[in-house]
Amino acid sequence: MKQSPLLENMIEALRCLPGVGRKSAQRMAYYLLERDRTGGQKLANSLAQAMVDIQHCQQCKNFTENELCVVCANPRRDHSTVCIVESPADVIAIESSGVFSGVFFVLMGHLSPLDGIGPEELGLEILEKRLVSGDVQEIIMATGSTVEGEATAHFIRDMVEPYQIPVTRIAQGVPMGGELEYLDANTLARSITERRKLDF
Amino acid sequence: MKQSPLLENMIEALRCLPGVGRKSAQRMAYYLLERDRTGGQKLANSLAQAMVDIQHCQQCKNFTENELCVVCANPRRDHSTVCIVESPADVIAIESSGVFSGVFFVLMGHLSPLDGIGPEELGLEILEKRLVSGDVQEIIMATGSTVEGEATAHFIRDMVEPYQIPVTRIAQGVPMGGELEYLDANTLARSITERRKLDF
Repeated sequence: MKQSPLLENMIEALRCLPGVGRKSAQRMAYYLLERDRTGGQKLANSLAQAMVDIQHCQQCKNFTENELCVVCANPRRDHSTVCIVESPADVIAIESSGVFSGVFFVLMGHLSPLDGIGPEELGLEILEKRLVSGDVQEIIMATGSTVEGEATAHFIRDMVEPYQIPVTRIAQGVPMGGELEYLDANTLARSITERRKLDF
Repeated sequence: MKQSPLLENMIEALRCLPGVGRKSAQRMAYYLLERDRTGGQKLANSLAQAMVDIQHCQQCKNFTENELCVVCANPRRDHSTVCIVESPADVIAIESSGVFSGVFFVLMGHLSPLDGIGPEELGLEILEKRLVSGDVQEIIMATGSTVEGEATAHFIRDMVEPYQIPVTRIAQGVPMGGELEYLDANTLARSITERRKLDF
């Protein structure tokens, strides 16, 4: 059915959001029009601004509207320890853990030759420049525990090796509060082979 | 964690969408920034325009950017048969059934005294003006088969009674508790062709 062209445009445009199909888009459009026009206008404004102004931090590639992101621009952070993660969401997760005071390097993905994502797409030459500078004293690999995440970690370890900078990998094992009963066999196997002595 | 304020704004703004929480909003923001800035900008533009320009049709209350919606402005539609529905989504559902050539009146809700939704909130005085004009020869009640939908149908029937205009109800092919929006076109077509007179 032909309805208002503006409404039709809006519904089509909402479908660019991940996980939003025709029905959801329709529901969102009606909801905004009926109940939250202020929210809709705020969304339009912040989207318009973000799409243009948010770029990548020149040092760690995380999203920022400035030259450097808030972490890289902070002189109190330990700039000699670099944690390598796959996505900005991982940065937020690690920040919320509260135990890391270093800086990040955000790959914005992982190596995936079949999808045409190689070292250049991950911006590894930016990382290498930081290694060359001599300021980096430890690299913490915090890519995902997936096949691609592991492959990416190994690739970067090989890249860092010539600089004789220690590379560590975040520990893998049983999550806190996790019950063994529901854990997958691979994780359990890993947590047993990598068991460590209890210190008293 | 404090991240880019623009990004933070965007994530907060996305939460105005129904069914979108903090995590989904974050995922949407990252997705748009990483993969679909054009889509994001289009969304911003169409949202901004829609929030301002889309208003209610002066005759049927459906959404439109003009004085009259496409249905009410169409001289080929049968303006003497008015189908009363709860929402714009219901209009689309009925249009897709292909058996209705009349016009609509969109309540934008149903009677719900506990939520403070009474006859004025549903704009029934606009409907009554159309009854007074003498152009209406049949009212088809197509509110949902829910308790509120039935109550609304009966309320409107009582309101129409003095005008001696026949009021019909779409046939009970509609499953109990079902909402028109999610019904298949065939069932809806059946329920419209088999509408029956409301007994007093």
